[in-house]
Amino acid sequence: MSELLTGIGQLVTNDPDRGGTLGTISDAALVIEKDRIAWVGRAVDAPAADTRTDAGGAAVMPGYVDSHTHLVFGGDRAAEFDARMTGQRYSAGGIRSTVSATRAATDDELRARLAGFATELHAQGTTTVEIKSGYGLSVADEERLVRLAAEVTSEVTLLGAHVVAPEFAGRADDYVDLVTGAMLDACAPHSRWIDVFCETGAFTVEQSRRVLEAGAARGLGVRVHANQLGAGGGVLLAVELGAASVDHCTVLSEDDVAALAASDTVCTLLPGVEFSTKQRYPDARRLIDAGVTVALASDCNPGSSFTSSMAFCIALAVREMGMTPEQAVWAATAGGAAALQRTDIGRIGPGARADVLQLRAPSVGYLAYRPGVPLVARVWKDGALVVG
Amino acid sequence: MSELLTGIGQLVTNDPDRGGTLGTISDAALVIEKDRIAWVGRAVDAPAADTRTDAGGAAVMPGYVDSHTHLVFGGDRAAEFDARMTGQRYSAGGIRSTVSATRAATDDELRARLAGFATELHAQGTTTVEIKSGYGLSVADEERLVRLAAEVTSEVTLLGAHVVAPEFAGRADDYVDLVTGAMLDACAPHSRWIDVFCETGAFTVEQSRRVLEAGAARGLGVRVHANQLGAGGGVLLAVELGAASVDHCTVLSEDDVAALAASDTVCTLLPGVEFSTKQRYPDARRLIDAGVTVALASDCNPGSSFTSSMAFCIALAVREMGMTPEQAVWAATAGGAAALQRTDIGRIGPGARADVLQLRAPSVGYLAYRPGVPLVARVWKDGALVVG
Ligand SMILES: [Zn+2]
Ligand SMILES: [Zn+2]
Repeated sequence: MSELLTGIGQLVTNDPDRGGTLGTISDAALVIEKDRIAWVGRAVDAPAADTRTDAGGAAVMPGYVDSHTHLVFGGDRAAEFDARMTGQRYSAGGIRSTVSATRAATDDELRARLAGFATELHAQGTTTVEIKSGYGLSVADEERLVRLAAEVTSEVTLLGAHVVAPEFAGRADDYVDLVTGAMLDACAPHSRWIDVFCETGAFTVEQSRRVLEAGAARGLGVRVHANQLGAGGGVLLAVELGAASVDHCTVLSEDDVAALAASDTVCTLLPGVEFSTKQRYPDARRLIDAGVTVALASDCNPGSSFTSSMAFCIALAVREMGMTPEQAVWAATAGGAAALQRTDIGRIGPGARADVLQLRAPSVGYLAYRPGVPLVARVWKDGALVVG
Repeated sequence: MSELLTGIGQLVTNDPDRGGTLGTISDAALVIEKDRIAWVGRAVDAPAADTRTDAGGAAVMPGYVDSHTHLVFGGDRAAEFDARMTGQRYSAGGIRSTVSATRAATDDELRARLAGFATELHAQGTTTVEIKSGYGLSVADEERLVRLAAEVTSEVTLLGAHVVAPEFAGRADDYVDLVTGAMLDACAPHSRWIDVFCETGAFTVEQSRRVLEAGAARGLGVRVHANQLGAGGGVLLAVELGAASVDHCTVLSEDDVAALAASDTVCTLLPGVEFSTKQRYPDARRLIDAGVTVALASDCNPGSSFTSSMAFCIALAVREMGMTPEQAVWAATAGGAAALQRTDIGRIGPGARADVLQLRAPSVGYLAYRPGVPLVARVWKDGALVVG
């Protein structure tokens, strides 16, 4: 079975050989065969296919790759959010309230929640999502979270070192022993990535190094939460360890920027966090001008950023972070794929996964031009129509 | 036929007698009879009805009242938006490019566009929309725009005095003669309101007064665009003339605030404009503290704010303008109704229109807590289910 999608006003391929930031083709078409893209080009040149769908002149782009979320959790933190909106500052301490609610939730409760988020993500055009653990903070609970996350995505990250577990208060190094020992043993089989929250109030650079090196020794790829609230050493550590991505990067020194620019580590910006914690936004323009590869992700979590909308992140990146609409769209698709070291997603070309988003708009610029408006018309995931 | 909607976790009534900003009822129910709300209260006390719908614990609120849009137009201004996002300032001059495209569009093209917007508004929970003319700027074209707008809403506003028509360049007073004469004659039968853009680059206070007084003499209600780009005399004029609403109010003097507080004129804030033109946001907290009635609206138009999402406006109002989530929800519902001098909408109580929005969330606080996420589950308009 092959499907021809034609009548595409603007097709974003993210193919650098096609020129421009997004490798766009106008008056385009594409062919899906099973779960893959088989052909891409001008509509007048399109081959025959078993079925034919008309995009009616709309823009078509790769589905969003959201490379940073925390979607396995119980409870919510709406009250904390309200308090923050009337003056309180964000601190990492609120994470512990979600830990209590998550531990109290059953597997089936967490599964139902995950299924709801999966539907919500598809409805918004996200076709690949990374999910982190980090609200269990015990061997059994972290194992449970990565196992449940693995039921909905292959991009599962062990974030046992999110904060120090309450049982280990004042004994952070002992908690790191647990994370790098029994917790890693239990969780590695379900995980692709290891992550740590390297920040004042969470883990020091040396503790973070222990966590990441232990994960890497077990074959997990490295990602880091760093430089959200202050300019610590997290970015330099991430670069030194060859991390796939270092995330947040709100506060960066010149050395941090230079190190990122000289590395293969992607810098993943999470503007939903700055929106919902009322902090200053990171300067994406500075990073891009320096030659850093920038991705956008939602950081969807109940504390600091409960948006799951990549379109919202694009609009914020353009309004607040100095990105052009094209750069923001690239960062939310190809950038996310780079942050996950994936070459089969985040682009539309022969051999890529058929993860395709058709907009209710003539160009992807509308994602910033029409902020907040649901512009998703159709979504294909692995070649199957999941929305529309 | 009566319909019972029960299992409402949080019901926003906007009934001041019920206390709090939103007059909320928990574990609530409501009954719809034909196009009206017949009963509201605790679910345990609900009367019998012909059909029964369960909200599953979700929040339910009045549909949004978007009291300020410009939805009858041709073309778009995506290129101008892109240029602005990379450094150019917003000016009112761009309006003229939409005038050309609108004049060139056929009635059926404009109708199709309006129908698309109507669907988009319902999908986002907006059940009442005000629509302004203002992209015709000739007698025939303004008549066409108010006539077409009247096909989709009863809240139609003649904004012939949006900018000076290109044919009258340098002869603003002559254009005002046209607006207050033949244009008003042609348009008044299709319109409920008269409006003017009182701003440097558009119309002076004295020209604005002529337009508004002529409209009022024909029985039209008064609304004003003022104080968007600078602190002119538009707000004081609006208050003097007893306008239902004065809109934008981004730049206000102490005298402006005091005059608004002492008046019945609603101050309608349009944060989508500040988002999309990269200007400073108005200070809603200052207005509310002074006792001014504040509404939120989208100002949906192709130039300065192409969002139609009232939820997005709520999130911006909370993040950027010092409103609490409750104040923002009130402003987007009851506030909009006040700005349109309507008592049958913007509230949920016996006798009100059955314009009801059920969220995919347990509380209306989620509208700010989950920015950008489509949280609309079901929408009733005049008692008929239009979404869900
Ligand atoms: Zn995170
Ligand atoms: Zn306006």
